[in-house]
Amino acid sequence: MLYMAGPEVFLRDGAEVMRRKGELALAHGFLPSTMAEQALDFSGKAPLEIGMAIYRANVAMMDASSVIIANLTPFRGISADVGTVWELGYMVAHGKRAFGYSNSAKPYYERLTEDHYRGTAARDAEGVMRGPDGLMVENHGMVDNLMIDGSIAEAGGTLVRREVSPGAEWTDLAGFEQCLVAARLAFG
Amino acid sequence: MLYMAGPEVFLRDGAEVMRRKGELALAHGFLPSTMAEQALDFSGKAPLEIGMAIYRANVAMMDASSVIIANLTPFRGISADVGTVWELGYMVAHGKRAFGYSNSAKPYYERLTEDHYRGTAARDAEGVMRGPDGLMVENHGMVDNLMIDGSIAEAGGTLVRREVSPGAEWTDLAGFEQCLVAARLAFG
Repeated sequence: MLYMAGPEVFLRDGAEVMRRKGELALAHGFLPSTMAEQALDFSGKAPLEIGMAIYRANVAMMDASSVIIANLTPFRGISADVGTVWELGYMVAHGKRAFGYSNSAKPYYERLTEDHYRGTAARDAEGVMRGPDGLMVENHGMVDNLMIDGSIAEAGGTLVRREVSPGAEWTDLAGFEQCLVAARLAFG
Repeated sequence: MLYMAGPEVFLRDGAEVMRRKGELALAHGFLPSTMAEQALDFSGKAPLEIGMAIYRANVAMMDASSVIIANLTPFRGISADVGTVWELGYMVAHGKRAFGYSNSAKPYYERLTEDHYRGTAARDAEGVMRGPDGLMVENHGMVDNLMIDGSIAEAGGTLVRREVSPGAEWTDLAGFEQCLVAARLAFG
């Protein structure tokens, strides 16, 4: 099974996007995971119980999967969705194949200096780039935090970044499809 | 070894904060991890190579550790540092003990509705809370994304949240120490 990680569950049309991703996965010979929420019965459950049930269902689905394709498009800020990132770490730890894509071509360093610090970051006395809050602005030429890029590179995967039309950040699946092609090649 | 995960490496006084965390860890009977950056030789290396070297060093340190305490204080936005979250997923996948703390007592839901959406989120026709960008605002009464809270709860760990004095978000170690006490109890 292919674990389709990403923040699609938060989208208004998330079920439809996941259905389209599932169709693409099948077309490339992968059995797609589903959204855990769709298979669970939440009736009479407290919010915390529901959260725990979703967690367990996601983990079970990951354990049954041999590969992950993570949607790493910046989510509510400058980095990928933390739930997706947790899942990437979990899958890599189990030696699973890992691929990812971001629908933003802007490198992490530019998202930090332009979008987050809006030009206020500067070099300190030691030559280290820092925001006015004192936090270092790292620049490894990567798509996101080095644990994300590092894990995909080390696992032999591909991290696709491409700019999509404004407004299509959550619906453009060309990056996902590039990952499917790379994953298909990896599995032979 | 205890893996001390967190965004301390980005702090101006990060080495000093990590030294203090290491002392506390030792006082509670745990051999502390160090910052990978301090043990590596980056001379003549390109930024991307440096990033990969840090990734590998962090993974090696995690593999040698039996427990993780993650600093999950919101970092440059409403959620924990993505590098720390990746590491939490990695350690939990290997069945390691997991603990975490946040120096913000504000629940994830309130950080989303107040700090991120600034009161503009509202219920849609189906009664689902959404931001003006259409993204669902989940509310499981958790500290952060459900993969974070879920994994620590499921691993039998503790997730400490406490409000600290303004400006002490990155230096107050009382939450870290509460995790050390809980971890000590767990290891007997």
